[in-house]
Amino acid sequence: MPQLILDISVSLDGFVAGPNASLDDPLGEGGMQLHEWVLVTKAWREAHGQEGGEEDVDSDLAAELIGQASTTIMGRHMFSGGQGAWENDPNANGWWGDDPPFHHPVFVLTHHPREPLAVNGGTTFTFISDGIKPALEQAREAAGNGDIRLGGGADVAQQYLRTGLLDRIQLHVVPLLLGSGVRLFDGNEGKLELTRSLASPTGVMHLDYRPQR
Amino acid sequence: MPQLILDISVSLDGFVAGPNASLDDPLGEGGMQLHEWVLVTKAWREAHGQEGGEEDVDSDLAAELIGQASTTIMGRHMFSGGQGAWENDPNANGWWGDDPPFHHPVFVLTHHPREPLAVNGGTTFTFISDGIKPALEQAREAAGNGDIRLGGGADVAQQYLRTGLLDRIQLHVVPLLLGSGVRLFDGNEGKLELTRSLASPTGVMHLDYRPQR
Repeated sequence: MPQLILDISVSLDGFVAGPNASLDDPLGEGGMQLHEWVLVTKAWREAHGQEGGEEDVDSDLAAELIGQASTTIMGRHMFSGGQGAWENDPNANGWWGDDPPFHHPVFVLTHHPREPLAVNGGTTFTFISDGIKPALEQAREAAGNGDIRLGGGADVAQQYLRTGLLDRIQLHVVPLLLGSGVRLFDGNEGKLELTRSLASPTGVMHLDYRPQR
Repeated sequence: MPQLILDISVSLDGFVAGPNASLDDPLGEGGMQLHEWVLVTKAWREAHGQEGGEEDVDSDLAAELIGQASTTIMGRHMFSGGQGAWENDPNANGWWGDDPPFHHPVFVLTHHPREPLAVNGGTTFTFISDGIKPALEQAREAAGNGDIRLGGGADVAQQYLRTGLLDRIQLHVVPLLLGSGVRLFDGNEGKLELTRSLASPTGVMHLDYRPQR
């Protein structure tokens, strides 16, 4: 069965977004710093049609992450990022543009039903408004032999963690204290197994955990 | 100059004590789990006059931590642990007993002045009630060629971090979500440099950071 893998960048003090995050600014103040490590890698740039980039542990990780998933589940903020509510613009396709990097089915959790949106490069956004389990079922059917990447945000991650549906947690711990913002973990309890750790020269710690059930 | 090193165990979700922590129960519910990794090591047991114990990365780390400090600064909760307020018992010497494992000067930050307390094995507890900087100055004078270990709790750690006085942060990240409790980082901002990472077979990640000033 495909594994459900939370893959997310987090500050050392546990935030996945900075203060004042909103639908218009999903990463909040300073939150973009959490993603700088991946944006400069060769693997990420290649997947986004760009040249150059760093070839290091971070790039190897980025390549692995891009390659392992055959479907993605994300929350609405992660889809809409920076473009506000699609209720105001039915054609809004978020910050992913016309040629998003997924090249596979993406399931967007939302309270606002919407028709599926097919874009270039094999990506189809399907909007799920009946809960995290139906979304996971659809993602599993679509996943084939690949895994399901859970991209965030924190709210979606916490819901899957709470219900015991997460198979793996791949954290990218950025050496940064944001001070406040959106916490990745909030009220979840349990033990985990550390399955891998990789330190990057950039100071990012890549930590893989398996929640124990 | 002696370095001020915060050395502290923390859950993956950032807590150094569980819910309902108090002067009578400084670790809170479930908080003792954060320290199990060190309690079973050969190095820690030897330092506490006990035989046996595990010989692994955790024990090597414990030996290093015990050896590197020639003075310790701690908060009052960490001193009093489980014995309540010394205002009720002027002779209370906390949970450290008659032969505490420090064998060096210990400076206890407190709002409740008290005469120094000398116990067996070369440990003297000096109680500092005029702030974190005077405590650091006294610890530096006493430290000689060794370093100063900041043992916690979170409140003391945050005060030193906020004032830029911390030289190193040695985190022991336990693969555990406590869900709530006392947070290590709370409102602190800044970048850090990752200087070392060691994964233990127990799943504890030992991460050394240097705050950037």
